Amino acid sequence: MERVKIAELYQNSEAFRAKTMTVCGWVRSVRDSKTLGFMDLNDGSCFKGLQIVFEAGKISNFAEVSKYNVGAAVCVTGELLLTPQAKQPFELHAVSVVLEGASTPEYPLQKKRHSVEYLRSIAHLRPRTNLFSAAFRVRSAAAYGIHKFFQERGFIYAHTPLITASDCEGAGEMFRVTTLDPANPPRKEDGSVDFSEDFFQKPASLTVSGQLEAECMTMAFGQVYTFGPTFRAEKSYTQRHAAEFWMIEPEIAFAELEDVMQLAEAMMKDVIRYVMETCPQDLAFCNQFVDKGLLERLQNVVDNDFARVTYTEAVEILKKQNDKFAYKVDWGTDLQTEHEKYLTEQVYKRPVFVTNYPAAIKAFYMRANEDGKTVAAVDLLVPGIGEIIGGSQREERLEVLEAKMQKLGMNPEDYWWYLDLRRYGSTRHGGYGLGFERLIMYLTGIQNIRDVLPFPRTTGSAEF
Amino acid sequence: MERVKIAELYQNSEAFRAKTMTVCGWVRSVRDSKTLGFMDLNDGSCFKGLQIVFEAGKISNFAEVSKYNVGAAVCVTGELLLTPQAKQPFELHAVSVVLEGASTPEYPLQKKRHSVEYLRSIAHLRPRTNLFSAAFRVRSAAAYGIHKFFQERGFIYAHTPLITASDCEGAGEMFRVTTLDPANPPRKEDGSVDFSEDFFQKPASLTVSGQLEAECMTMAFGQVYTFGPTFRAEKSYTQRHAAEFWMIEPEIAFAELEDVMQLAEAMMKDVIRYVMETCPQDLAFCNQFVDKGLLERLQNVVDNDFARVTYTEAVEILKKQNDKFAYKVDWGTDLQTEHEKYLTEQVYKRPVFVTNYPAAIKAFYMRANEDGKTVAAVDLLVPGIGEIIGGSQREERLEVLEAKMQKLGMNPEDYWWYLDLRRYGSTRHGGYGLGFERLIMYLTGIQNIRDVLPFPRTTGSAEF
Repeated sequence: MERVKIAELYQNSEAFRAKTMTVCGWVRSVRDSKTLGFMDLNDGSCFKGLQIVFEAGKISNFAEVSKYNVGAAVCVTGELLLTPQAKQPFELHAVSVVLEGASTPEYPLQKKRHSVEYLRSIAHLRPRTNLFSAAFRVRSAAAYGIHKFFQERGFIYAHTPLITASDCEGAGEMFRVTTLDPANPPRKEDGSVDFSEDFFQKPASLTVSGQLEAECMTMAFGQVYTFGPTFRAEKSYTQRHAAEFWMIEPEIAFAELEDVMQLAEAMMKDVIRYVMETCPQDLAFCNQFVDKGLLERLQNVVDNDFARVTYTEAVEILKKQNDKFAYKVDWGTDLQTEHEKYLTEQVYKRPVFVTNYPAAIKAFYMRANEDGKTVAAVDLLVPGIGEIIGGSQREERLEVLEAKMQKLGMNPEDYWWYLDLRRYGSTRHGGYGLGFERLIMYLTGIQNIRDVLPFPRTTGSAEF
Repeated sequence: MERVKIAELYQNSEAFRAKTMTVCGWVRSVRDSKTLGFMDLNDGSCFKGLQIVFEAGKISNFAEVSKYNVGAAVCVTGELLLTPQAKQPFELHAVSVVLEGASTPEYPLQKKRHSVEYLRSIAHLRPRTNLFSAAFRVRSAAAYGIHKFFQERGFIYAHTPLITASDCEGAGEMFRVTTLDPANPPRKEDGSVDFSEDFFQKPASLTVSGQLEAECMTMAFGQVYTFGPTFRAEKSYTQRHAAEFWMIEPEIAFAELEDVMQLAEAMMKDVIRYVMETCPQDLAFCNQFVDKGLLERLQNVVDNDFARVTYTEAVEILKKQNDKFAYKVDWGTDLQTEHEKYLTEQVYKRPVFVTNYPAAIKAFYMRANEDGKTVAAVDLLVPGIGEIIGGSQREERLEVLEAKMQKLGMNPEDYWWYLDLRRYGSTRHGGYGLGFERLIMYLTGIQNIRDVLPFPRTTGSAEF
């Protein structure tokens, strides 16, 4: 008997009307009276399950099936009945129920509500719950939606390296990667560690960004994107920070800040649209149980132009509200999440690009504006999250970039290859970074980054 | 003037006939007589470039343009003339040529052949050459082809963790990930390093496989795949090994070894077909300059069923040729590349699945066959490469798996979560790992893994 996935039934139940088929999945619940039983079976192919009807006269093992524990794996063969009047649009009337793998009463996911904190302690099982089933299905769809967006526009997917001997942003703690004996590393005469004996013959770390390498690729392909893991070793116990997360970093040549913003807006709308089309059951669940305003907010993003404001204008707006904020705003200060949320939620009520930040609070590679004070940076703020994208036009002028690096105490020789891009066929160019987990939080309404990563790595925790 | 990508011209030149447009890219060569010049411009949107014709009477800066150095970035506005009789199908007659970023005579990529060894030393520039343009465009297309294959079949893309506190395969050197001071780590009373003060409060490493975590996800979603970086700290200077590489690991539930093979064959054919359709110019170049038999070999894979042979049968075949081999074959020995190549190139002349290897040479999680000697493992061997895929049906029987682990000196308690999958709703399941770089080498004919990774990390080398 051909195995059918439950998702196929939801896609086109008419095609399966009155057909006999086999469905394999895991038991979410069983209830029975003396001769009639109902089983909720989920096979993970879509959010929703399938109602199995089993009768004492029709299957040979009625008594056994009635006692299946939650979590058991079973294969059911039966006939599909369409039930348009009922709560579920169809049900499978079993002629055979075969136990694939039993479960026990100790199965940690009984049919009741568990706290997300408890579920984090069983990350190997939590994808079997409604919430995490939805979260990781949305995650998968969003990842593909992003690839689809860029590939259909001719972008080249660039696998930039994870292990690096340079620190792109010059910021943040990095993880060291080593094969030296931690207890007894080789030493030089002066007692310092002799990294020439390490695997890469020098100190190496896990990258915090693939941008610099992506820029190299952009100067060959015109438009590229990265999509890979990124690392931060900052000790943090917030809901928003993980030590290992995924990032998307597109980069485009012959382009200015305006092009970067247009790309970011098009991508955000496209990905949201794709996930809304692909995962309607999952988003409906999140809208009902995680965040009541979710679907309306997402539709609002798709339907409206993003707002735009310069940092300087934004500061003028925010200063008037300084009594509301824990951190007071003044020109030159970095915007905090409270300010970002105020702008996007209260002032604009939709996503907003904030542009042209003070040079002093932004990275060395951002392009200097003519005012001598600001750089062509852009952050995208969205309701419910705050900053979701950070980008800029890059400094393409060799002498300007070298002067900036020297001013910041960086050694241009360490970046000879990055500067080469400005020596040979330099172009206006720019790009941005999208934190993938922030996007999934935005798409699902889930508030803790630990709940959108299948196996989160955070300060003090690398379980499973 | 709207900017047009060169790829669009190749896709549908008729639509642009006699139109005026702007094309931006990098100069590959310039040659000129007194009043007429030709420029080969490449914008990275496709493998091929665009011939620009510029005339002294038509553009204002003819003398300057004639002297542009190779590598300069320019924007050319002009009219497209279709030239079906000529070597290139169209050319752009310039009315304006604007220098975006100059180059110099020191530009390392002059119009001559460079050795791949030299080009590795300028990995930031080499994507601008024909060979690496093709290699990385194929890489991008193959990555998307793989995502497309799995997503269209309803697989969930699972982001398994990179940082891990467990060693899945129990094999191979791993990179340690740490934030401890290498010169002066905190010590316990007995002098050993106190990892409780490290970032994750215990020793952590970079993963060698996402399989165990993927199995967890499979028991919720039925079918998942990973696609992410993987690490090996083995000191190796071969053409086939990198310290950081990308791997695809699909995993399917309610499935046996036969299903795993069917999935692998379908995926390989689908990806090859996708890349042949998407990157014809790139593959044609590789076929001409890298590997003359490339296109024929790829077509052969798409058109034919993969062969199948058991390990035991394969050993019988190979033993007869033992005088040809450096390593002699006998039942129980692992197959070397020379044996694998002999099987796929000489015996079957097409891809071949070798199944049911001796348990002693395979990983602990592979399912024991009834003969008591072999496991339900499968390797896919392909001409020109040898092993490209390794997979198995997994041991789903709790007591069999525990006994195996104990026999191997592993502590089942360390794998409590992996064993939980066998306690609660266990199913027959299996999957495989595909080394992504091996696939790209197979698709392009390139022999060295350093030349299919944009910024390779190998023993002693983590440049850029």
